[in-house]
Amino acid sequence: MQNVKVAIWGFGAMGSGMAEMLLNKEGVDIVGVCVSRPERAGKKMSEVLGKPLNGKAEVILTNNLDEAVKEGECDVVLVCTDSHAPSVTEKVIRVLEKKVNCITIAEEMAYTQAQYPELAKKIDECAKKNGVSALGTGINPGLMMDLLAVCFSGCMIDVKSVACKRVNSLSPFGATVMREQGVGTTVEQFAAGKADGSLTGHIGFAESIMMISDAIGLKVEKIEEQMDPIVTDVDRKTPNGAGAAKAGDVAGVSMRAQGLRDGKNVIDMQHPQQIEPEQVGVQTGDYITIEGTPAVHMANTPEIDGGLGTIAMAVNCIPQCINAEPGLRSMIDIPVPHAIMDDFRNHVYESKKLVK
Amino acid sequence: MQNVKVAIWGFGAMGSGMAEMLLNKEGVDIVGVCVSRPERAGKKMSEVLGKPLNGKAEVILTNNLDEAVKEGECDVVLVCTDSHAPSVTEKVIRVLEKKVNCITIAEEMAYTQAQYPELAKKIDECAKKNGVSALGTGINPGLMMDLLAVCFSGCMIDVKSVACKRVNSLSPFGATVMREQGVGTTVEQFAAGKADGSLTGHIGFAESIMMISDAIGLKVEKIEEQMDPIVTDVDRKTPNGAGAAKAGDVAGVSMRAQGLRDGKNVIDMQHPQQIEPEQVGVQTGDYITIEGTPAVHMANTPEIDGGLGTIAMAVNCIPQCINAEPGLRSMIDIPVPHAIMDDFRNHVYESKKLVK
Repeated sequence: MQNVKVAIWGFGAMGSGMAEMLLNKEGVDIVGVCVSRPERAGKKMSEVLGKPLNGKAEVILTNNLDEAVKEGECDVVLVCTDSHAPSVTEKVIRVLEKKVNCITIAEEMAYTQAQYPELAKKIDECAKKNGVSALGTGINPGLMMDLLAVCFSGCMIDVKSVACKRVNSLSPFGATVMREQGVGTTVEQFAAGKADGSLTGHIGFAESIMMISDAIGLKVEKIEEQMDPIVTDVDRKTPNGAGAAKAGDVAGVSMRAQGLRDGKNVIDMQHPQQIEPEQVGVQTGDYITIEGTPAVHMANTPEIDGGLGTIAMAVNCIPQCINAEPGLRSMIDIPVPHAIMDDFRNHVYESKKLVK
Repeated sequence: MQNVKVAIWGFGAMGSGMAEMLLNKEGVDIVGVCVSRPERAGKKMSEVLGKPLNGKAEVILTNNLDEAVKEGECDVVLVCTDSHAPSVTEKVIRVLEKKVNCITIAEEMAYTQAQYPELAKKIDECAKKNGVSALGTGINPGLMMDLLAVCFSGCMIDVKSVACKRVNSLSPFGATVMREQGVGTTVEQFAAGKADGSLTGHIGFAESIMMISDAIGLKVEKIEEQMDPIVTDVDRKTPNGAGAAKAGDVAGVSMRAQGLRDGKNVIDMQHPQQIEPEQVGVQTGDYITIEGTPAVHMANTPEIDGGLGTIAMAVNCIPQCINAEPGLRSMIDIPVPHAIMDDFRNHVYESKKLVK
């Protein structure tokens, strides 16, 4: 069997991180990289990454998807361009029409049917028509606030309610994330940014809630979501210099959501994100509580790093995406994700491999 | 689609617990129960359980499998008779030859290929020939010390080593378990029981270790296992009266195992089991530590009850077993397990349903 052939679309922190991970793995090759920034076209991947190729072939970055992804020469494309389903769906469709499998880390496509059932149907039909599959994944949505709770519920006779909490630090991130999460703004600026939509907060609650609801059959009918500022009592500043908040200003954003059935909160989500949480005694971590028989009380501390986790989830799910039956897939209908420390080909079914 | 039709083979604590769980679920019927004790044949299931049928049909217990399981009238059989692969394989083969899917909680069949590759091959061939599938599951092996670690590793770029620890209480169990785990024996009696094989300790380390090793590609070459007495400093007694240990005697068993590659312990298992651990300040729980990038440090406290957990895993995996491609399956190659709070038929593919 030939090595697994992977192309990457989008070469920011996520796409380039996946490339670096793939360069350190066996039985897998990067065959194309499509970038959006015009000045990067024509550059060598290894130079842009600043990393050795480890004996693998060089790839020249291009702005042209048709150069990066060719039917019959690629098993799967990793789409890492942006978060929203409407724009990413067009990209996924372009990949599927080349008869190539597609993984995306767009948060709204971790469970596209949650908010965009028409787009989900369109992708599913296109994938089936072309005999390949599409998968959305990532650390959150994709694992920590959904699949992991679903997996734990496997040992339960009855489930009454699910609560997922992810307490994380924004300190490792750069200026863009600080701006999107309102770090360093006054309370008034935060309110204005929330009102005009320039503050994004966390994207993915609807997808996580519906993934859990559909898997367990909790029949959530309505989702409510809240975004509030985390106002700091003390001056805070990140070590990388990208973020700072004075006492009385905003150090981060508290995101919450509830999945309601008959007006009752059956799936609760809490995701406070802030710079330097340790300065005020907040420990990062991932927490899952499932009420029912028997109950689950899980803590993973400190939090799993969101960037590394998303990179890993996308790359580690390559075999599951290739092996899947044609159509739109989600994390709840493929075999459990896992790290891959041996040859990628050991995890791919020969019958499903596109580049034989 | 007709309700999912389930038969149960073996009606001890596990089999009868599964029956009770199924009587409380939608879209699923119990169509047969095969028991080993002759005096139970001819009795009504509801009377033996002492539970209401909740509008479902009565089942008359039988000692004859051919009465309990009929081709075309059953989608899946739950085999809950004993722990060991050689004896349970014969039972699984009998089920598969009736062209019915089969789930077993026999610990050695959670990953049959770990210790019995020939039996695994035999089951796989028989299942494929008959167009059905066989699956081994349970709480441990099956989830807490294997699948859960595998699932967490999905967010990791590299894995150096995996450590799973399950600290549990034997207090809820009856006299048989107390005897098998050496509770209340002197240190000398424990040593004798270990030597003559009458102490069973935990069964399933080889299966858990190989499931993790194969999923992640850790290439374990050798497994070592230890069984030691947990000697108590204080008198201990279980509330149910089934177990007691005087100071200086044995309150339980410390089970450990190591999955070795190049002589290095890459998958570590610790499973201390004792009566009344709280009396000596030991808190029960499930712990997973995965060294690598990023690292995982998970704790679930208190432990998930082993009996309830195994009952739930077997029943909750019914859809995955029915939906699977024909052959021998394991927890690492089916979609993630989950509780089922809605109609079982919502989780079964129409094309894979045996009783249409």
